[in-house]
Amino acid sequence: MPRYRLTLEYDGGPFVGWQRQADGPSVQAALEDAIEKLSAARVTVTGAGRTDAGVHALGQVAHFDLEKEFEPGKVRDALNYHLRPAPISVLDAAVTDEDFHARFSAAARHYLFRILNRRSPPALERGKVWHVAIPLDAEVMHAAAQHLVGNHDFTTFRAAECQAQSPVKTLDRLDVFRRGEEIHIEASARSFLHHQIRSFAGTLKLAGEGKWQPRDVKRALEARDRTACGPVSPPDGLYLVKIDY
Amino acid sequence: MPRYRLTLEYDGGPFVGWQRQADGPSVQAALEDAIEKLSAARVTVTGAGRTDAGVHALGQVAHFDLEKEFEPGKVRDALNYHLRPAPISVLDAAVTDEDFHARFSAAARHYLFRILNRRSPPALERGKVWHVAIPLDAEVMHAAAQHLVGNHDFTTFRAAECQAQSPVKTLDRLDVFRRGEEIHIEASARSFLHHQIRSFAGTLKLAGEGKWQPRDVKRALEARDRTACGPVSPPDGLYLVKIDY
Repeated sequence: MPRYRLTLEYDGGPFVGWQRQADGPSVQAALEDAIEKLSAARVTVTGAGRTDAGVHALGQVAHFDLEKEFEPGKVRDALNYHLRPAPISVLDAAVTDEDFHARFSAAARHYLFRILNRRSPPALERGKVWHVAIPLDAEVMHAAAQHLVGNHDFTTFRAAECQAQSPVKTLDRLDVFRRGEEIHIEASARSFLHHQIRSFAGTLKLAGEGKWQPRDVKRALEARDRTACGPVSPPDGLYLVKIDY
Repeated sequence: MPRYRLTLEYDGGPFVGWQRQADGPSVQAALEDAIEKLSAARVTVTGAGRTDAGVHALGQVAHFDLEKEFEPGKVRDALNYHLRPAPISVLDAAVTDEDFHARFSAAARHYLFRILNRRSPPALERGKVWHVAIPLDAEVMHAAAQHLVGNHDFTTFRAAECQAQSPVKTLDRLDVFRRGEEIHIEASARSFLHHQIRSFAGTLKLAGEGKWQPRDVKRALEARDRTACGPVSPPDGLYLVKIDY
């Protein structure tokens, strides 16, 4: 039975998140419905990252199995046709090995968090950036972020509802830099805890506006206490950029 | 009576265009309503460019007069407050000379047209780019575009409903280049005819996909005949970037 691998772009705005839920439209359900229209088969689609409501993807990866073998370009085009008008685009479809698993085979996940840092609210990028009107110092945010890189117990930056077995993770990279009116936070790790990057973003904002010193971020990490975290950012600025296998 | 100058960003998607019309929401009307909420005065707002339905702005300029003098930063913030939830953002407000006129004082207008040139449709940039699935050659498009630069009779590239007195205009610049998956067309002139840039985009696409040679674009220009124009592009990819005074 062929296994298909999809690379996906989506606007997380209208969805309850990646995962199928009873209370609203999900990316997973939209894909499963489109696959059923293509193949008349009901399948389960597995994604590399279970993005939250409002979180976007530039390169989510997913897999599913189908009895029938289709030409991969046809799978891409047919799914894009059946997905309309949902803002999900299949960038690539390929037949892959049976032992490929979108979630468990992932070696690294790369995320981007975009802050629009100017006085005036976004008109064109609404829902696509976190608007912070107070001027932020990206260099201070970057210095603070370096305390988080490495193997740590990230209990402070983990949502109460997180299902991961352990709060200990290795953060490979957390870079903060200014790009015009925006501040970008780039995060890479094998895997992340629930709300980890949004907890980082909210905490690094405190450093960027001068309310916290970089060493306060280190102290928050070492506290291993959820209440030591800064306010969790909204999901709007978060993008799942790429998965390495 | 102080004259105020605004710099504006907006998403043209939900509007019938810049200009107030009976049949739907316009950017102009949204601004006039917001100014009334701020000042209790009913004013007319004049814009530098009367963008069409679906056309966006990164730096539209507009002016209006008010009896009362407000601190410009307050005008910016109060208008942004009253404009919600319309996707219009006042980037800057300033008090300007009485003889400043957003439309007639403009020395140059700069537009950007974005084509998303890939097989898969846009998910994140829907309504913000023109999606062209056929591969386009940006270098050929640029070569073709150079035939349009200069002082010409642009009757071929002018909408039937265009209100300009003369079809003769000077096009200062028309550059086409690739930027990743996108093709950007940058156009600069003192003023443009109605649908001129969308007529350029639709015509240059024919050159980019190889249906036309660059010399066919020259021939179309020289025909001075609307029927010689390629299909007018949708408005989605067009942005009013900046006005020079």
